Amino acid sequence: MTRKIVIVGGGAAGSSAASFARKTDRKAEITLIDKHKRIGYSRCGLPFVIGKEIPNYEELTVYGHNFFKMSKIDLRLETTVTEIETKGKFLVAMDKNGTESTIEYDSLILATGAKIFCPPIPGIDIKGVLPLRTIEDGLLIEKRAENSKRVVIIGAGLIGLEIAVALRERGLEVIIVEMLPYILPLVLDKDMAKDVTKELTELGIDIITGAGCDEILGTEEDEVIGVCVDGDTFHTDFVINATGVRADVELARNAGINIGKGIQVNEHMETSIPDIYAVGDCVECKHLITGEYVLSQLGTTATRQGLVAGRNAAGKRDIFPGVLMSSVTKIHGLEIGATGLTKWAADRANIDVVIGKMTGHTKPHYFPGGSKVKVKVLARKDDGRVIGAQIVAREDVGHRVNMVATAIQSHMTVNELAKVDTCYAPPIADTLETICLAAELAAKKL
Amino acid sequence: MTRKIVIVGGGAAGSSAASFARKTDRKAEITLIDKHKRIGYSRCGLPFVIGKEIPNYEELTVYGHNFFKMSKIDLRLETTVTEIETKGKFLVAMDKNGTESTIEYDSLILATGAKIFCPPIPGIDIKGVLPLRTIEDGLLIEKRAENSKRVVIIGAGLIGLEIAVALRERGLEVIIVEMLPYILPLVLDKDMAKDVTKELTELGIDIITGAGCDEILGTEEDEVIGVCVDGDTFHTDFVINATGVRADVELARNAGINIGKGIQVNEHMETSIPDIYAVGDCVECKHLITGEYVLSQLGTTATRQGLVAGRNAAGKRDIFPGVLMSSVTKIHGLEIGATGLTKWAADRANIDVVIGKMTGHTKPHYFPGGSKVKVKVLARKDDGRVIGAQIVAREDVGHRVNMVATAIQSHMTVNELAKVDTCYAPPIADTLETICLAAELAAKKL
Repeated sequence: MTRKIVIVGGGAAGSSAASFARKTDRKAEITLIDKHKRIGYSRCGLPFVIGKEIPNYEELTVYGHNFFKMSKIDLRLETTVTEIETKGKFLVAMDKNGTESTIEYDSLILATGAKIFCPPIPGIDIKGVLPLRTIEDGLLIEKRAENSKRVVIIGAGLIGLEIAVALRERGLEVIIVEMLPYILPLVLDKDMAKDVTKELTELGIDIITGAGCDEILGTEEDEVIGVCVDGDTFHTDFVINATGVRADVELARNAGINIGKGIQVNEHMETSIPDIYAVGDCVECKHLITGEYVLSQLGTTATRQGLVAGRNAAGKRDIFPGVLMSSVTKIHGLEIGATGLTKWAADRANIDVVIGKMTGHTKPHYFPGGSKVKVKVLARKDDGRVIGAQIVAREDVGHRVNMVATAIQSHMTVNELAKVDTCYAPPIADTLETICLAAELAAKKL
Repeated sequence: MTRKIVIVGGGAAGSSAASFARKTDRKAEITLIDKHKRIGYSRCGLPFVIGKEIPNYEELTVYGHNFFKMSKIDLRLETTVTEIETKGKFLVAMDKNGTESTIEYDSLILATGAKIFCPPIPGIDIKGVLPLRTIEDGLLIEKRAENSKRVVIIGAGLIGLEIAVALRERGLEVIIVEMLPYILPLVLDKDMAKDVTKELTELGIDIITGAGCDEILGTEEDEVIGVCVDGDTFHTDFVINATGVRADVELARNAGINIGKGIQVNEHMETSIPDIYAVGDCVECKHLITGEYVLSQLGTTATRQGLVAGRNAAGKRDIFPGVLMSSVTKIHGLEIGATGLTKWAADRANIDVVIGKMTGHTKPHYFPGGSKVKVKVLARKDDGRVIGAQIVAREDVGHRVNMVATAIQSHMTVNELAKVDTCYAPPIADTLETICLAAELAAKKL
């Protein structure tokens, strides 16, 4: 019997699920439904198109129409799933013309993604307050930027900073407003965020931290003219809402699927209802250190969960063990990466930590072109196991993050991490790896 | 009582030992003896000075005279240790004027390094056959290169290839002769060496593999005029002997210290005689996978062993667990790295392996500037533990090697390595890490 696999949502998670389902079962009937017109592109690339590092939005396509055609995946765009009938195992969907149809499934994968969070700020729904989640959003921001002198960005997370740099490089005056006391509060501790603040400031970006946006001011025509922050009023031509997203769980909830912070799934990406999987920004993920459930909302998590659910929906039994929230970005010339817990997050999880901080060099001092690399390694005080790292440098950050993620997932202690036989060559790295030296400093405090 | 620490040899291992002994014991009397005039510089940087990537030899100084002065280390250069009196705990040394002195020690660290290996080739001792181990060697090679059109390099190991590229970039015709069937035979398997061969060939370097150098031909004035390889004769202006080095164990052997492939040490870097440590190219190292003793002769090993012995000689109890032989280099624009065992080495150690090979991208396809990354991951067939990796790409090789080294040292299986929560951002890395994908391919064969 031909297996019917239906996927709702064509972002990174849904497209990945479709792709791996097809790789696993060459004969299955696979249908992918999405309410949008464009799917299968990299959301993470959006700020870099605005910043003109990537020439246009078409480039962002990861799974193009040709892929779906070659893979014989039945693509139903501009189609909204209105209901899941879990007993009869079918969906009700409505296309752009309002025509309703029912679609049967043997395995269903929900990849409904997330919705822009609108913080309760007066004026947040004025026209000139823009999010960045889709290509359409990107086009709107670019159009605004062309006729604007100044932008205020609410939220100093990864996407907020990426947009800030992109718009600054297009010549705008940029003000970032972050309610928490420092930028990138979910990625870095305050001490490690300093260099990033410096980089942004040197670019001419103004940063206001520890202060909420009290109100967004608009004209009678509903056009943004300013924002009020902590008693001060700043004129601005438009506002970017980069305060984050919330899991889109409506369809799942209406179907009676268990919901926590997002859709609840086990390590096979199965929801509480048989034969229904969920992946990506709409699900809650088990944090590998705290065991708590968190919203990852990272492209890596979405892609890997899609891979696992796609295979499992097609008959395999793969697992997604959980997340460390490993992330990295590049802010102008500066790379910033982290994995596991920050000190702040460890405190919240009641984990006592030892910390090793070390500044090294990406290359030996005698080889031209190297630069400083700042590393902070955290370990549990009780057993010395590595639980996190933060890294800031002009190069080679991403794979250092991966090295520490490997150490965390294999339950290494800082003593063991300090003794890893790393490699070296003058054009590539210094003799003693900074990660190992930072781990050793942490180990001394055990 | 003030501790007397004496170190014999001022290369990477000896200088590192002196430095870490001083950091551990601020009051110790530390003496460093070396028969050379120049010490404390990076040998690994030598080919890159010849290739003009590093402007001059002075730059290579890692531990300069000022460091030794500030650290109050008694430096005795151009002084040869002729004897160790292990009962009375003193050395006999002779300075450049032939004056003999005795030097007492509480802790002695031998860092006597290695000697150039001279393969039994007729003509190997002709004047124009040059090694590259010291700055003096580098100067001689540069002088030769200025007046030469062609050079033959015997040995296609890391240093042989680095010199080959350096001299090619200076405009010489370069021929590499390697007795084994492919280049970098101790670092890569044949399949992974192909891209390196292609890079070298495109640079205009001729490579002859699977053929020994039968004879080096000289004039009556003892000047090189050619080499005979497998029946063919090649004219050349000079020859580089890059066939490797042998541990210099003479002093240790004469003192009655146990010798294997090199000086035998335990994980505290202690030799068979109390209070005598040995570090660097002169010692044999335990391979962390096979448990066999090998000559590492890598700068990283030397530096780390120096760190451990320096501390221990000053009263601590640090350990050096062993080596994976992690190495990396850059050949023109191509980075080549490896850790653990190759397939060839696994066969020799009677370890059945599964292999995963994957070609990925260093960045997503839509971000400008990325390039292909080829990864080969090896694991034990019996328990799936990772035992090696080889990586070839134009960027980001070194820290991928470190990630796999971390996995090996923490006894991860390929299944576990495939599931590491790696990070991603368009300017830095692709969503699914190639190391993890290669590990997964290997895991499928278990």
